[in-house]
Amino acid sequence: MRIGIDAMGGDGAPRAEVQGALDACALLNEDDKIVLVGDRDIIAEHLAGNDGWEKHIAIHHASQAIGMNESPVEALRSKPDSSIAQLVRLHKEREIDACISAGNTGAFAAAGQMLLRRLKGVHRPGIAIVTPTPRGPVAVCDVGANVSCRPLHLYQYGLMASVYLSAMCDIPEPRVGLLSIGTEDAKGNDLVKMTRELFQCDPRIPFVGNVEGRDLFSGVCDVMICEGFVGNVVLKLMEGLVEGLMTAMVKELGKIVPGQIAALKQVGLSTFAKYDFNEYGGAPLLGVNGLCIICHGASDHRGIKNAVTVVRELAKRHMNERIVEVLSQGPKDS
Amino acid sequence: MRIGIDAMGGDGAPRAEVQGALDACALLNEDDKIVLVGDRDIIAEHLAGNDGWEKHIAIHHASQAIGMNESPVEALRSKPDSSIAQLVRLHKEREIDACISAGNTGAFAAAGQMLLRRLKGVHRPGIAIVTPTPRGPVAVCDVGANVSCRPLHLYQYGLMASVYLSAMCDIPEPRVGLLSIGTEDAKGNDLVKMTRELFQCDPRIPFVGNVEGRDLFSGVCDVMICEGFVGNVVLKLMEGLVEGLMTAMVKELGKIVPGQIAALKQVGLSTFAKYDFNEYGGAPLLGVNGLCIICHGASDHRGIKNAVTVVRELAKRHMNERIVEVLSQGPKDS
Repeated sequence: MRIGIDAMGGDGAPRAEVQGALDACALLNEDDKIVLVGDRDIIAEHLAGNDGWEKHIAIHHASQAIGMNESPVEALRSKPDSSIAQLVRLHKEREIDACISAGNTGAFAAAGQMLLRRLKGVHRPGIAIVTPTPRGPVAVCDVGANVSCRPLHLYQYGLMASVYLSAMCDIPEPRVGLLSIGTEDAKGNDLVKMTRELFQCDPRIPFVGNVEGRDLFSGVCDVMICEGFVGNVVLKLMEGLVEGLMTAMVKELGKIVPGQIAALKQVGLSTFAKYDFNEYGGAPLLGVNGLCIICHGASDHRGIKNAVTVVRELAKRHMNERIVEVLSQGPKDS
Repeated sequence: MRIGIDAMGGDGAPRAEVQGALDACALLNEDDKIVLVGDRDIIAEHLAGNDGWEKHIAIHHASQAIGMNESPVEALRSKPDSSIAQLVRLHKEREIDACISAGNTGAFAAAGQMLLRRLKGVHRPGIAIVTPTPRGPVAVCDVGANVSCRPLHLYQYGLMASVYLSAMCDIPEPRVGLLSIGTEDAKGNDLVKMTRELFQCDPRIPFVGNVEGRDLFSGVCDVMICEGFVGNVVLKLMEGLVEGLMTAMVKELGKIVPGQIAALKQVGLSTFAKYDFNEYGGAPLLGVNGLCIICHGASDHRGIKNAVTVVRELAKRHMNERIVEVLSQGPKDS
């Protein structure tokens, strides 16, 4: 398998990306390859001093880079030789089998959708994350690819995210919940009400009905479906709250057991680790004809390495073939 | 001031409501009154054994009660003598000056909108909460009253929630942020983009532009505006996450300092207190011609008592008069 990594995106680029690629070499099979895409000289500089990387790592030159805050579509237009554009182009031409970027999410998702096109039967790609909870992992889809969702899009996110979670976490029949503002059927907006009907008509899906924000942690569903605007708010709120609450709690603890601040920080970190985006290896852009893993902008080398693990697993489990198969049997149009 | 309390709503009713009313007596002026609305006999039974309540507390009989899971509109129709319907009717007829309920939120909000009507200039009432954060209180509006928002509704929520936060927390000029999926102007859905233009045209508002979910805790804004569907998800997600994370952290801590479980639980509780809905005294239904405070369904006596504090403060600060004044100067139609 050949895996492309955008070496110029992300807050820690290229150090995190290069180190992540080096760490990932230990996971690879004999004929696997990692292709680092970006400025040839800068990447070589970061590889220098490491032994034996030539066996698994290659460099593909890209002369431009898209900044984290650039407008995605405009940046892709004005920087045709950016690392993101080159990375996705290599994937389109099947020079590589998967691509990973911690760079500008909007640009990466847009390039993925424009160049790779959609899998057969897919109406709109969506981004899925897996979040750890005290009652097991929960997949949330979409977290930002699609802010003008139709019911059929949401229904397909339910199917695609179920296939993804099955492959990632060995959950054979994930229970699907539809994010709303009350569990009763009458609660929600029109989009939710129409989507629920689609789910209820498909006997293949263990559909638990409407769920609420708090149900992300209550264990009632394994997959939570929502439109991209809501999902993106959820994702970023979680990040902010976990950080804010951890800080507040360690501060309070310091007052009670003042001698043990170092131990307390350790506990904070250890609890935090379960909620650390670096642990779950990035979010796939589900529904494109390829494997695109979007890493958090602040990913470190572990995040990049885990993303390599994820793409290998998704390829091994034939996620995309499975998605095409599952979609071929459900409702086709809304 | 005469304050009505729904004695039959909420998970802890009528015990929490009656005890909250008794506790609140200490806060009241000579001629203030609390009217407990609900089953006469049940309320009297819970008041029995307490001294001196007759001075401040009266009972208004209502023979029916709306359950937490009943469909709001249907329940209001089929139970005209429910405590919620009676409570709001008393307020409409100005027998009382404010009403508080921890019962069925949808029924209370619907009754408030139908019976009290709107303040002059208000297009749609919205529910505002104040949430404590490490960087100070932040008001979020709307958290569930309006799931089909137009830009003018959101703009008015910004004005009304600012007036509310000023009154509640002594913040003279609250900075207003518009919840979106990226801080750049180009990010968001059509509703967000059109709303932003309205805010940008009003020089009276310290408008900080788009904010993200994580900004609830970053201190960039004092008021965060969103449509009711998104706000309700945010509200319930916070509740679930705070609880889930606290549990996880106390568990981790137990492993490191096993001798101090009791102390650790105390710390959990003490941090948790800041995020406890009982502390902030309920959420006002902003924009109705009256004072309606929606308490959390799980409110205990402190929650009810704090709601009494809140309505007295909002009345003293002439919140509704201020809202009418502020709205009379902004854009009138979208």
